[in-house]
Amino acid sequence: MMGLYFDEIEPGRVDELGSYEFTREAVLKFARAYDPQAFHLSEEAAAKSHFGKLAASGWHTAAGWMRCYVETSMRLAGARPDPAESGPSPGFTQLKWIKPVHAGDTVSYRTTITGKREHAGKRDWGLVETYNEGHNQRGELVFSFNGKVLVRKR
Amino acid sequence: MMGLYFDEIEPGRVDELGSYEFTREAVLKFARAYDPQAFHLSEEAAAKSHFGKLAASGWHTAAGWMRCYVETSMRLAGARPDPAESGPSPGFTQLKWIKPVHAGDTVSYRTTITGKREHAGKRDWGLVETYNEGHNQRGELVFSFNGKVLVRKR
Repeated sequence: MMGLYFDEIEPGRVDELGSYEFTREAVLKFARAYDPQAFHLSEEAAAKSHFGKLAASGWHTAAGWMRCYVETSMRLAGARPDPAESGPSPGFTQLKWIKPVHAGDTVSYRTTITGKREHAGKRDWGLVETYNEGHNQRGELVFSFNGKVLVRKR
Repeated sequence: MMGLYFDEIEPGRVDELGSYEFTREAVLKFARAYDPQAFHLSEEAAAKSHFGKLAASGWHTAAGWMRCYVETSMRLAGARPDPAESGPSPGFTQLKWIKPVHAGDTVSYRTTITGKREHAGKRDWGLVETYNEGHNQRGELVFSFNGKVLVRKR
């Protein structure tokens, strides 16, 4: 992650990942491809649903986090002469969709390193644990999850 | 979910959700929009990475599940005279990316109802818990998570 090596990772580190705008167009495009529930596809259906107005798919909120995470990582890695290779993620826990993200909202994402440890069976990689969150333009927490990613050792 | 009311949900129920083909085009399209890491964008970069060959973003594997889940739900709900309204998901736990999904793979998804319970503060909705999995065309488990979704009571 971020071009950092496992050895350099310090729990407590916080990185602001920038923001992603959930334009009406982006919300509809994601929903048509991956989550074609009526309330993600039209204002009319959304108005009649529990959402009240057009809302992004929860998986879109997650994909927006990934987009911001990757862009920030590529920028930080690009600024290093010897960036660490990005590793895969074995998965994550406790993903929460806390509030709807409506068309027109902008979500700012942040990642905090919460821990690091050896990973069974991997000698060249360590496991880094993170807490990730997204706040909308009103400062409301709308999304969070606890992530895990494998990071190269030097 | 599935047009079923909370009262009708029976733990143990298994639904096959059909499959999603991770064509090269679909892999690249998702990666460009949401996960532009080099190993998701070109065969050359993938060959030099831990993946070895072009692999779908893990979030794409999740979005493929959603696509299959929504299509199956719409079909089942459409076959009922009185389908229940779909509810939001508060989130999920233990999402696992178990094996890479490579360009050209087809993943078949399945959802199993593992439990149901009252949800604090919601009188008209109950919480349904699920175990969800995806297997590739060789029958290998590549993806799983424990989901939660709010379902309308009658």
